[in-house]
Amino acid sequence: MVYPDTFKGFAVESYETWASPKEFEYKPKPFGSYDIDIKISACGVCGSDVHTVRGGWGDARLPLVVGHEIIGTAIKVGDKVSGIKVGDRVGVGAQIGSCMNCDDCKNDNEAYCEQRVGTYGGVYPVDNVDGAAGVVTQGGYASHIRAHEQFTFKIPDVLETHLVAPMMCAGITTYSPLVRNGCGPGKTVGIIGIGGLGHFGIQWAKALGADTVVAISRSDSKKQDALKLGADVFLATEKKGWNGEYKRKLDLIVNCANSTDGFALGEYLSLLKTHGRFINVGLPEGDGYKINPMSLLSNGVLIGTTHIGSKTEILEMLDLAAEKGIRPWVTTIPVSAAGCGEALEKCYQNKVRYRITLVDFDKAFGN
Amino acid sequence: MVYPDTFKGFAVESYETWASPKEFEYKPKPFGSYDIDIKISACGVCGSDVHTVRGGWGDARLPLVVGHEIIGTAIKVGDKVSGIKVGDRVGVGAQIGSCMNCDDCKNDNEAYCEQRVGTYGGVYPVDNVDGAAGVVTQGGYASHIRAHEQFTFKIPDVLETHLVAPMMCAGITTYSPLVRNGCGPGKTVGIIGIGGLGHFGIQWAKALGADTVVAISRSDSKKQDALKLGADVFLATEKKGWNGEYKRKLDLIVNCANSTDGFALGEYLSLLKTHGRFINVGLPEGDGYKINPMSLLSNGVLIGTTHIGSKTEILEMLDLAAEKGIRPWVTTIPVSAAGCGEALEKCYQNKVRYRITLVDFDKAFGN
Repeated sequence: MVYPDTFKGFAVESYETWASPKEFEYKPKPFGSYDIDIKISACGVCGSDVHTVRGGWGDARLPLVVGHEIIGTAIKVGDKVSGIKVGDRVGVGAQIGSCMNCDDCKNDNEAYCEQRVGTYGGVYPVDNVDGAAGVVTQGGYASHIRAHEQFTFKIPDVLETHLVAPMMCAGITTYSPLVRNGCGPGKTVGIIGIGGLGHFGIQWAKALGADTVVAISRSDSKKQDALKLGADVFLATEKKGWNGEYKRKLDLIVNCANSTDGFALGEYLSLLKTHGRFINVGLPEGDGYKINPMSLLSNGVLIGTTHIGSKTEILEMLDLAAEKGIRPWVTTIPVSAAGCGEALEKCYQNKVRYRITLVDFDKAFGN
Repeated sequence: MVYPDTFKGFAVESYETWASPKEFEYKPKPFGSYDIDIKISACGVCGSDVHTVRGGWGDARLPLVVGHEIIGTAIKVGDKVSGIKVGDRVGVGAQIGSCMNCDDCKNDNEAYCEQRVGTYGGVYPVDNVDGAAGVVTQGGYASHIRAHEQFTFKIPDVLETHLVAPMMCAGITTYSPLVRNGCGPGKTVGIIGIGGLGHFGIQWAKALGADTVVAISRSDSKKQDALKLGADVFLATEKKGWNGEYKRKLDLIVNCANSTDGFALGEYLSLLKTHGRFINVGLPEGDGYKINPMSLLSNGVLIGTTHIGSKTEILEMLDLAAEKGIRPWVTTIPVSAAGCGEALEKCYQNKVRYRITLVDFDKAFGN
């Protein structure tokens, strides 16, 4: 069987063999009136993919095709879809479903809907109108994806396919916390962790008009990169007294670090002005960090986490990227069983500067 | 020597003898142009007093006279003081100094000033204009206190001395987080911990116009009290599934609990709407609690702490209390060495429902 009855992808079969995905054929959810079938042409590789296939975030539904930074071409469009037509270049990020009816869904908070469905490893709820109840979602290391129009985004022409792909997750994951927490003119904004997320964060913060963007990393090794990306200031936390000069100077910190080992939360918080905000977007495995209410007291900071972003924010982000020439730094790898394994392995080893996009889907799948 | 050269109080001399304060005579800071000398007539007993004298919050400067819920009469007023005159009934809370010049001080955030001076156990900074550098502050279990006008508040006539005293710390500690985090009409607000702080929190939340005030306690033992105080809903966390009905219904939770033992943070956070806020005002001893960024993700909540409040907020709070008839539930104890010890001991044993005010200062000090 082939499309439209089945899709093909590269799936991880067990936690032990996470770096060796295998070919996998599967039936997508039944096609609904609001659905769009997308022939995939590129898919970014996200840290989430690695956390998931290694079981680091808890049980995954294996075998699983990961990948949620998807760009492709709309090849079939449901009768109730508006705004996207066959032939359009579109993207899909880390969310592919929500209830569409709750307060969150009605207020640009669909990413926080209690019935949200992840792009891979998610399960459609029992009341799914298309009869998809129980179907496990499969991601973008694949020939096709079937997505609800709410979670499908038209891509501005000027954004190159392999460069816009990582915006679907890493891009919005860093854009949303900045706009939701007041990044803009007059603000001093810190970005912790210069990696797949942080290298977007620096660019967005600058593009959104922050007066000063402070990049924070362990050592000086990524200093030049951070400055090239637009940081005004670079701080290396391994230096004694690193936080002295910027104490109480920052309005907002977006924490993109992917580890809680030796994470000196108190030192980071000391950088914030009164009622400043420390927003986590990296989601390290493990137990998290300790917070003593006393340590939050001296400057009354708020600590939070945001989760991807809304459709409204994704479309704004794409326009901003188009307008301001913002692009991630991307290495491409041709998609294949071996290519997916190589990409996951590189991402796991944290050697990517700063994103990988899987490409050449036409060769792998005859798309 | 006596006033104005020295003040008399009851001081804790060591952590071991915290429940047996002794008479103590000390020199106040030099009198400055903005200072007011207050003959004390009542002083509330605060959980902070107990944490401090037992060393639970770290090293205390002993011997120390604690007490920072002070009401008395202005008996001497500096030549630059405006708005307070000799004979006025005034209050002093948990802060008695700040730099008066930083962004925080200029923006109603003097409680967060880096040079703030606590009412007891604080030390005036080296550049103090009155030559008070190095003077350790002594609190309100005493005959008098000398306070800067910024930290001295005129008390509305209608508020009884022994009832307004606890507002100086417990009152503002619960009022400020509510107003700073949007408590008001249309909001559903949770108060965790029905004690000295929480019993104010419930009353303020209701008086500020919250639609629904949800009181949260371990067992049902304080249910009737909570309802009398104005709570619309009472939840006992020892009941299985206690958080089910109110999941994602609260805009704001003010955590007044004074313990982190078995503190089920995740269950509390599950009550919050997307980007709801969990604000700590209790400051338990010990290490605090663990936060996993993942647990903040599903509803994108913010966790923070606030610290007392501003002069502006204190004056607003007093007006609100006067207007809406809000009063703490107070037990009075005559001030004396034994009375102070009894009050600290009762507070430590958590048997107070819900505040103690030391009274009869005239008898003890011939005031």
